[in-house]
Amino acid sequence: MQIKCETSMRHVHLTEKDLQTLFGEGAKLELERELSQPGQFLAKQRVTLIGKSQKSFENVGIIGPTRSASQVEISRTDAFALGLKDVPLRLSGDLDGDIPLVTVQNGEATVLAKAIIAKRHMHLDPVTAKKIGVSHGDAMKIKVGGSRAAVLDQVIARVDSNFTSAVHLDSDEANAVGNPQIIEIE
Amino acid sequence: MQIKCETSMRHVHLTEKDLQTLFGEGAKLELERELSQPGQFLAKQRVTLIGKSQKSFENVGIIGPTRSASQVEISRTDAFALGLKDVPLRLSGDLDGDIPLVTVQNGEATVLAKAIIAKRHMHLDPVTAKKIGVSHGDAMKIKVGGSRAAVLDQVIARVDSNFTSAVHLDSDEANAVGNPQIIEIE
Repeated sequence: MQIKCETSMRHVHLTEKDLQTLFGEGAKLELERELSQPGQFLAKQRVTLIGKSQKSFENVGIIGPTRSASQVEISRTDAFALGLKDVPLRLSGDLDGDIPLVTVQNGEATVLAKAIIAKRHMHLDPVTAKKIGVSHGDAMKIKVGGSRAAVLDQVIARVDSNFTSAVHLDSDEANAVGNPQIIEIE
Repeated sequence: MQIKCETSMRHVHLTEKDLQTLFGEGAKLELERELSQPGQFLAKQRVTLIGKSQKSFENVGIIGPTRSASQVEISRTDAFALGLKDVPLRLSGDLDGDIPLVTVQNGEATVLAKAIIAKRHMHLDPVTAKKIGVSHGDAMKIKVGGSRAAVLDQVIARVDSNFTSAVHLDSDEANAVGNPQIIEIE
């Protein structure tokens, strides 16, 4: 079975409160582009990420809608560049425990947010999940062909009636296996 | 069978001529650190890489000894950052055909060098190669465990009596599979 594969570039999720702090009272995330998962969108607003090194990342996207906790999602390559050594590999929203903080900046305004490397995962609608025979939370294997052919294990199934079926890799993972648009389930 | 796994960061190989252009007549590469492959070393000298974007990479290492052709080795992540779209995936030294050029800079001096993304490969001494049952040029599979477990296919065997057995991944690949120190041959 073949599933669409998408690459998540570095991005930020913000609380309403942090959004107001960064962009002013009453600020709303403005729609630039809808993403594959219903309701999720890339906002027009951009921020700068600052870690512990001289290197910073400008023009970083914000994914809406706002959430109950702000969160920065970066690749391991980004983490090294920002001088952050212990950025954990986590599913989005799993922010428990000691996690390095990144400064999220817009002009003079800043907030701090926990930084994670998003664990690779597969969004699945319940019908597709049943067809494949996997449940929410299962670790799956996906297969990629071509000159950087690979089988990636530990792709976590995320099943929800609101989801469109799609694998999400981070930029390190996508680059390492040749930036596939489609993968096969192993 | 287990083999050591090393990550190749972005780096440059230079001809004697390009070395003189960048560092002055009579310049020699100075040893900073020996690498795992006998005779190969990281030089003390550093260069800056400039592509087609505003982004450049400073403090990039040079690997000695000098070669018959200058060459820049970067990751796909680096290629995107430098604004280079068609950097090919190649074995080191395979520079035939149209390949994007990168400006290699030291102070006011610059040279142009072809840029490649190094195809993942495994250095093998002939005894180990025979034990595994692979020949020079064969595509192999390697297995990595842990939270980013994977099987990477298309790891090209490089067999030479001067080699120490080691897998070389680029930074995207190493990060994508959890920066392994040791891999298993599948």
